[in-house]
Amino acid sequence: MEFSEHIKTANVEDVELRQPLHPPSRGTLCITGHHLLFSDREEGSSRQVLLLLRNIDAIEKSVENLLGYTGFFSNAGHSERMSGSSGTITIKCKDLRVLQLDIPGMEQCLNIAHSIETLSCLDNVSEMYPFFYRPTDLNLQNHRGLSAMETYYGQTKELVIMRSSQPLTGANRKRCKEDELLLQAVIDGSDKGYIIDTRSSQQVQQARMMGGGFESKSCYDGWKRLHRQMEKGKALQESLIKLVEACRDESHNMDRWLSKLENSKWLSHVQTALSTAGLLAECVERDGHSALVHGSEGTDCSLLISTLAQLIMDPCCRTLEGFLGLLEREWVEAGHPFQQRCAHSAYSHARLQQESPVFLLLLDCVWQLWRQFPLALGFSEALLLRLATEVYASDYGTFLCNSDQERSALGVKEKTYCLFQALLRPTERDIYSNPLYEPTELAIWPSVHPQSLQLWKSFFLRWTPQTRHLEEVQEEIRNMVIEWGKLALN
Amino acid sequence: MEFSEHIKTANVEDVELRQPLHPPSRGTLCITGHHLLFSDREEGSSRQVLLLLRNIDAIEKSVENLLGYTGFFSNAGHSERMSGSSGTITIKCKDLRVLQLDIPGMEQCLNIAHSIETLSCLDNVSEMYPFFYRPTDLNLQNHRGLSAMETYYGQTKELVIMRSSQPLTGANRKRCKEDELLLQAVIDGSDKGYIIDTRSSQQVQQARMMGGGFESKSCYDGWKRLHRQMEKGKALQESLIKLVEACRDESHNMDRWLSKLENSKWLSHVQTALSTAGLLAECVERDGHSALVHGSEGTDCSLLISTLAQLIMDPCCRTLEGFLGLLEREWVEAGHPFQQRCAHSAYSHARLQQESPVFLLLLDCVWQLWRQFPLALGFSEALLLRLATEVYASDYGTFLCNSDQERSALGVKEKTYCLFQALLRPTERDIYSNPLYEPTELAIWPSVHPQSLQLWKSFFLRWTPQTRHLEEVQEEIRNMVIEWGKLALN
Repeated sequence: MEFSEHIKTANVEDVELRQPLHPPSRGTLCITGHHLLFSDREEGSSRQVLLLLRNIDAIEKSVENLLGYTGFFSNAGHSERMSGSSGTITIKCKDLRVLQLDIPGMEQCLNIAHSIETLSCLDNVSEMYPFFYRPTDLNLQNHRGLSAMETYYGQTKELVIMRSSQPLTGANRKRCKEDELLLQAVIDGSDKGYIIDTRSSQQVQQARMMGGGFESKSCYDGWKRLHRQMEKGKALQESLIKLVEACRDESHNMDRWLSKLENSKWLSHVQTALSTAGLLAECVERDGHSALVHGSEGTDCSLLISTLAQLIMDPCCRTLEGFLGLLEREWVEAGHPFQQRCAHSAYSHARLQQESPVFLLLLDCVWQLWRQFPLALGFSEALLLRLATEVYASDYGTFLCNSDQERSALGVKEKTYCLFQALLRPTERDIYSNPLYEPTELAIWPSVHPQSLQLWKSFFLRWTPQTRHLEEVQEEIRNMVIEWGKLALN
Repeated sequence: MEFSEHIKTANVEDVELRQPLHPPSRGTLCITGHHLLFSDREEGSSRQVLLLLRNIDAIEKSVENLLGYTGFFSNAGHSERMSGSSGTITIKCKDLRVLQLDIPGMEQCLNIAHSIETLSCLDNVSEMYPFFYRPTDLNLQNHRGLSAMETYYGQTKELVIMRSSQPLTGANRKRCKEDELLLQAVIDGSDKGYIIDTRSSQQVQQARMMGGGFESKSCYDGWKRLHRQMEKGKALQESLIKLVEACRDESHNMDRWLSKLENSKWLSHVQTALSTAGLLAECVERDGHSALVHGSEGTDCSLLISTLAQLIMDPCCRTLEGFLGLLEREWVEAGHPFQQRCAHSAYSHARLQQESPVFLLLLDCVWQLWRQFPLALGFSEALLLRLATEVYASDYGTFLCNSDQERSALGVKEKTYCLFQALLRPTERDIYSNPLYEPTELAIWPSVHPQSLQLWKSFFLRWTPQTRHLEEVQEEIRNMVIEWGKLALN
């Protein structure tokens, strides 16, 4: 495909951009195959906004000719009005930012809108920007390899955490002798193991009718099943949509805010994930037994729980490299279907299909850990924010496709750069390290009391002035600490 | 009065103390006229708990003899059970701590409970502990004087903020020529002034029937009245009680927590106070006019609003001395009835009379400012926590009585020590200063969006392990910053 066939208007002059945290500005808008570029034409400044089209979740357009209601365009210059029409495009990004463009000329506006609509949701992975992005300070050879393919987690005590999909016992209670022997071998010499099923007992019974199922007590002797129902899929996506809507509510009504926050159920999902991960970690770390975690496919909640449990237990996972390695192993290589799950974020009106913010929920849970143990994690909050953006739209190939198999078929590893390697470059490492990091060998058990969990404001409210202000202050404190730390070393 | 007549049992051995954040311990309990003292008898440690009886808000007692249900006393040793009876006293403190004492011997338990009940709510101010407290490193001569009696706040622009009670116009629309002339003189040379009334328009009409009233437009030409209804008295006290009850809810239900938090309305009161103070500051700082603030008595909400507005506008009020001076001027000297308002906190079942946590609401609002502007205030969060305890029960005389007049009559200034002076001693100053303080001349305008305000967890959840853990970490960070700061200076 030629991108150019989707770009009828590539440049528009005299566009007004309104974006959060900045005063409105006027300049030139340019659309390319993968980017929207706005260049400020104010004297003395050359501010640019470069936005990956892939980051755009939804747009709204309104065009008005001069005879119509023009109040909405009161900021537009007189000359544009005289040309007979103009339009406004509201751009809602997957990173939750909302921009507005006032574009002179109805046709130009419609062309731009059409280009954005088409180019922001290309289906063909090999046409996506990571296949075109060529940074000068990274090389393609140095790809991946943060983690050895060690699907399971081994401890000194020779305990393991395993992940899997559900056993396909079906309605006829089929058995798989090899699977039974494998699980038996895992707990050999021990009295038992735990299976944490992320579905309710009712759900697993229903799953049997569809060919799925669970490990029956009689066939998997020594394994104890625990059910902890976790929402995923549509329920989680709707929770995110409601939360973002609540965060954008500009009324000054405190009751309404708290009621909407409750109604979104997002914090309940955070709580369930952290407490299930805590349960898994307890089985292994405190109770001294191996554990298997699965739901139905083993590509969503199982990853979430096993990742969090490892962060709780294993100090190696809490360094910057360790955490990125953990994500590579437990999410990228384990086959979380990023492309399906992150096709849209909170604004799209597209009919929900496979979208689900499971990875975002992970980041939120990690943030709660980070907030409760500010010294125990080697990475900064900025890393979590960066990952939350990159997973939806990225220059890098890391989160492309739905599995390693798909990535291999498209040559993603050979043709795109790796985000995790990029984040470990010295310049980036400074930004994404925690200057207060003090490694501890101990497990970090998070409190999951409702009173202990908090809205991740720097993500969900990141485009509001009050959050930005706080971020600037945190940045200043961070810099102070780094400077003082350097002095202390000299 | 002799305190001894209320103390039938002064010492009990073999008492078990259960308190938050500590393992249970066994030791000796001692009751004096003003204190409860528990001395741990564990080997190698000599932990003591010294509690001002005045800090006790409510107690619950349950006594059981051996024939009755003894499950509750399962931790009690065998010998106590054999003596036939024992009892448990649950002590709920005004600083929100809850302690339990298991006391062998029913009679001893009832004696102790009776002593606590009587001595914790002595009416006679001159029998209270501040009249007996004699620190060695403070002297009585060095009393008060942080602020000159300058009731009003003057700016370089010659604008003032005034506080008053309501004008007593009554149903007959009485006038007071002197008052009208005074207010006219204030805005002389300016086009207008603002009156912020902390009651609704409906409330001020009703107040007229009771002899109170408001400044009519015709008599107070040039003054514009703005009504911002603020809750005080019983409504505020009930809000606190509900909030503390929600914070103590130990269910793991996120929805229930958020719903109870909303239902308490405490955060709404915080929001109203901050936004009304913001309005007052806008009238003066942005609009350039003088302002008068009052409700009915001028001893509660008016003080709250005028204090917060000064913190917003005036950098001098943001230093440690400045803030304590502000409290002395705007609360102690202005006649906030501390004794009535802080007689009980959130646990007492006593019929509410004059209790109202207006000063606590102030501290919460200041904390919100502190959180939003972590560099702009010269004092630490620890100061706010300390004040929140001291206002309910203190070694110092600062918050005794209901007015300066009452304090003079009892010789409080001559016979008790001043908390504010104590907080400014070099050792204390280190604890209560903000190591990140960077003075700014600018006004600090707080965001009052519901999304920007937060529960003051380190106060309301201070006795939970997760909050204490975070506090310890904050303390560690604070020490790091102080140490590094010293290095940077060398």
